[in-house]
Amino acid sequence: MISKSTTTPTGLESTDCTLPPVAGDPGSQPAPTPGSFAQPARVGTPWTFASQDTPGMPAPSDKTAWDFLPDGWSLEAAPDHASGCAGHNHAELGEHIRCAAPDGFEPITQLEHARLGIITPQMRRVAERESHLSAEQVRDEVAAGRMVIPANTNHLNYQLDPMAIGRASKTKVNANMGASPISSGTDEEVEKLRWAERWGADTVMDLSTGGDLDACREALIQSSTTPIGTVPIYSMIIGRKIEDLDEAAILKTIEHQAQQGVDYFTVHAGILREHLPLAKDRLIGLVSRGGSLLAKWMITHQAENPMNTAWEKICQIMRRHDVTFSIGDGCRPGGLADATDALQLAELAEIGKLTERAWRVGVQVMVEGPGHVPFDQIEFNMKAQRRICHGAPFYVLGPLVTDIFPGYDHITSCIGATAAAFHGAAMLCYVTPKEHLGLPKKDDVKQGCIAYKIAAHAADVALGIPGTRNPDDELTKARAALNWEKHFQLSFDPDTARAYHDEDLDVDTDFCAMCGHDWCSVRISKEIQDWASGKAEGYEREKVMRSAALTVEQKEILEQRGVLSPEEIHKLASKTKKTVDADDAGKAACHSDYVDDATAKKMQGHLADQPAT
Amino acid sequence: MISKSTTTPTGLESTDCTLPPVAGDPGSQPAPTPGSFAQPARVGTPWTFASQDTPGMPAPSDKTAWDFLPDGWSLEAAPDHASGCAGHNHAELGEHIRCAAPDGFEPITQLEHARLGIITPQMRRVAERESHLSAEQVRDEVAAGRMVIPANTNHLNYQLDPMAIGRASKTKVNANMGASPISSGTDEEVEKLRWAERWGADTVMDLSTGGDLDACREALIQSSTTPIGTVPIYSMIIGRKIEDLDEAAILKTIEHQAQQGVDYFTVHAGILREHLPLAKDRLIGLVSRGGSLLAKWMITHQAENPMNTAWEKICQIMRRHDVTFSIGDGCRPGGLADATDALQLAELAEIGKLTERAWRVGVQVMVEGPGHVPFDQIEFNMKAQRRICHGAPFYVLGPLVTDIFPGYDHITSCIGATAAAFHGAAMLCYVTPKEHLGLPKKDDVKQGCIAYKIAAHAADVALGIPGTRNPDDELTKARAALNWEKHFQLSFDPDTARAYHDEDLDVDTDFCAMCGHDWCSVRISKEIQDWASGKAEGYEREKVMRSAALTVEQKEILEQRGVLSPEEIHKLASKTKKTVDADDAGKAACHSDYVDDATAKKMQGHLADQPAT
Repeated sequence: MISKSTTTPTGLESTDCTLPPVAGDPGSQPAPTPGSFAQPARVGTPWTFASQDTPGMPAPSDKTAWDFLPDGWSLEAAPDHASGCAGHNHAELGEHIRCAAPDGFEPITQLEHARLGIITPQMRRVAERESHLSAEQVRDEVAAGRMVIPANTNHLNYQLDPMAIGRASKTKVNANMGASPISSGTDEEVEKLRWAERWGADTVMDLSTGGDLDACREALIQSSTTPIGTVPIYSMIIGRKIEDLDEAAILKTIEHQAQQGVDYFTVHAGILREHLPLAKDRLIGLVSRGGSLLAKWMITHQAENPMNTAWEKICQIMRRHDVTFSIGDGCRPGGLADATDALQLAELAEIGKLTERAWRVGVQVMVEGPGHVPFDQIEFNMKAQRRICHGAPFYVLGPLVTDIFPGYDHITSCIGATAAAFHGAAMLCYVTPKEHLGLPKKDDVKQGCIAYKIAAHAADVALGIPGTRNPDDELTKARAALNWEKHFQLSFDPDTARAYHDEDLDVDTDFCAMCGHDWCSVRISKEIQDWASGKAEGYEREKVMRSAALTVEQKEILEQRGVLSPEEIHKLASKTKKTVDADDAGKAACHSDYVDDATAKKMQGHLADQPAT
Repeated sequence: MISKSTTTPTGLESTDCTLPPVAGDPGSQPAPTPGSFAQPARVGTPWTFASQDTPGMPAPSDKTAWDFLPDGWSLEAAPDHASGCAGHNHAELGEHIRCAAPDGFEPITQLEHARLGIITPQMRRVAERESHLSAEQVRDEVAAGRMVIPANTNHLNYQLDPMAIGRASKTKVNANMGASPISSGTDEEVEKLRWAERWGADTVMDLSTGGDLDACREALIQSSTTPIGTVPIYSMIIGRKIEDLDEAAILKTIEHQAQQGVDYFTVHAGILREHLPLAKDRLIGLVSRGGSLLAKWMITHQAENPMNTAWEKICQIMRRHDVTFSIGDGCRPGGLADATDALQLAELAEIGKLTERAWRVGVQVMVEGPGHVPFDQIEFNMKAQRRICHGAPFYVLGPLVTDIFPGYDHITSCIGATAAAFHGAAMLCYVTPKEHLGLPKKDDVKQGCIAYKIAAHAADVALGIPGTRNPDDELTKARAALNWEKHFQLSFDPDTARAYHDEDLDVDTDFCAMCGHDWCSVRISKEIQDWASGKAEGYEREKVMRSAALTVEQKEILEQRGVLSPEEIHKLASKTKKTVDADDAGKAACHSDYVDDATAKKMQGHLADQPAT
């Protein structure tokens, strides 16, 4: 909500700026979670903001995973009934924990442990990685079904570093990869995996549909520190027509991949026979591969979706290895025209039921969401899912907010992803520049990851997750101090930032090539004695004013840029060095920390006299 | 609002999805405009959405430009008092038009014409370009101050194609360019102008601070079909220290640039002496060049902002040439930490007063807005401006929603720009990948324009401006029909889309390299007989299945891509041609329109056997 101090100098006094209660306010939500943050008022500022929950949107469900316990389990009345939780004192127990599992029950999944009040090593690791959460909070979020820790017990034997997906934790990013029959192979996919991890992907999906699927999956699981997800139906139809798929084949593949160590499965069990007529008038029918394959199966066999009818059997296999569900949206829209239509919402209702059924077996659940959604419909989509799936983490593809920019869909979709994460998504599935055009290459993976790290981080800052804005403020302090070296170190992609800067001006002056010396607002602000601007301790400019030679990587970045030839770039990158740097000792003569303003100006005059390149 | 049909198959029946009235609903706004659109329900879909006005945000002003007429003008009671509007019948007159200007008054600006009920040729041209608006509506929006047509009477002698900026019209994009003392020159800037117009910029600002400013401005004005804006203070301090600036010099420069034909001026008259102490604790002080220069002037002279004290004199000069104001925000935040603080809001209150003062002289006004704003604060910023500036068009820089991605700020900012346009901005000032690092090069201009065309278009679709979603739906139909050629033609950047596609697969098959044949959901949807998907008339696939050779431009796009060497790209781009296309007649043997599925599959098997590249 927007709170006001008693007086403001803004002329806004007469404005009614009161917002309804936010998610974290007591009483406004049935189940307040550590993820519902109200931003504190900032020093010197009478305003705070938090409006991720617009009034009038679907209200949260009044149920959680506690309402869908397996048969034989019960919630008991007395909080001191904790006999089954040996080694845990009461202070550590969550609100609901009563430990009333059947005699002899052995927990396997994170959800089962959480329900019993047990804090697993994976929960502890998650609390380390999410510094605003305690291990107890992690356990309680997992128990409520609002958080998952996708950590197949077999994958834990390799290098998996456990992480969590949920509204209480920071927003996560998934990178899709995988060979197709047309392009790529195992080595290239492992290389893309490393590249995705380098650029911040929190999970990776192997969507291979070509090459040696089994070997590629095995290689990715053994190489990854991040959870690996798959869509098992892709393997089910290798060497088999979709029409020939049966329950035995489904369960066999599920079992095999669970044993391999896959951490989460996308299963499109929500699309039903009765939904198919709703696809009739769609501009682009079904664009989910799993959804369209199962639709074809249902039409051929005139039978119900076999993933749905076999749901409990699939759940039992997944429980044994703690594979997490990512319930697929086989009816997700493939264009703005088909967004939020009756088909999509009908499938969502069924996904809500599947969530409840999976929780009853003790399996962790997240739910997948739509890919093309006009900007104004995003919040509704998030809130409808939150209500129907009782707060299970929402894993959203994009969504793209326009269809007419193929080649730039990492951008069209990270706009939608930011709004989605702000309004309720817990994980964002990246989209690369190659979406709709072909299989992503290594650089597409990087571009997709970065666009989505932007979306996730921007949403976390907007949500006020404690500490998330610190890196932004640190970079702002370095920028204010005109400390270029620190500015680049604090950047998400330091090489690109340095290369772009040095393209015009490869000396670290106390201004930049955008404005030059006389017009540098930051320099002027910094010079005003009684202002804090540019004076933060530890952010002072180093006295080395000339930047080191560009690294090979930085040179490559410049060479790959837009419409300039390598010759033009080299000319640009070295022109200031030649013109300004009369001595070779590394000191730039025009730098105004060393010379007076008049000399600096004169030096720039020389620069301006150079013929334009 | 979200309306519901009586029954839905979604399980959402029990959900309260009623939203408060939207802007276009009668009674909910003091001044409904043609720009307030409620989206119609779509066929087959019970849902509509429109929530650009969250309840609780600052309410709109109850005043418009009609409340700030010049001295001697009056609104009269009788609507048939139209004697001053010769040639216009009553049906053409707007609601408020009473034509009570002083005797002998000659209108010059678009605002003055509109107040007198006169439809100018420029208004007619705007109505042609905004197909959802009539010339009468354009006039009435201009008269109310909610729309501007930046068209200097001198620029109209060259090639200017009049356009409008306001909430009733489509969202516009501005591209900044201009030489700095460090980089670029006039020829390069004219080349960037053409490039910006090619990529959809609606206006261009010449922010030159180096080189021959006068010649560069002259060249841009003579070459442009788009309005040109400037920040005149930059010229005022060429050959003069900021401390030496005085009113005479200010007015001389304003007069000179107005005569040259500049269409809009950014003037930072809102920052006052009393505001400066509010900058004290900011992390990065003032980042507006104009703002920081004037702050320095005020501190040196211990006097009020000369732009503010000379405001009416500046207005009189601008009125004579119909230069539009873009009132600058000298106190815009330079990082998330400084966003929406007391300083920014104090300046905004003064900008509201300047708006009123300019309207009293008959000058058109738009207002500039903040550059770094957390995602959750964007709507509040838009609504505060709308209230305080009485609906004058808001021209917003970005805003960036995170600070830690230098090199990618076209993306960080187009996220904020989409939200800004959805919630109230009328024009978006682009940010390029070079923001904070240096002066944009030609490709940066392209990347910035495209990111902002995405933002503007996504917002227009979300606002439901009639017709804006048609191109998206057309592309979706082509995509559903697997008509690649049409798909690319309908793309915003056809060369890039084609190049990315052909990188993997330079035959136009009825699938793409992302999934291959067997997994192509779009192909499967299209094959289901009773579905509309892929069957739209006029979108059928052409029978030419092999794409033409890549153009030079398309090859360059591939060569500039990411981490691949040109050799690798050429290998990729031709590998399917060599493998698949056994005959040279242009027909791809694996194409499943011509071969059965088994043969297609076999051909793909060959591809999968190729060593990974």
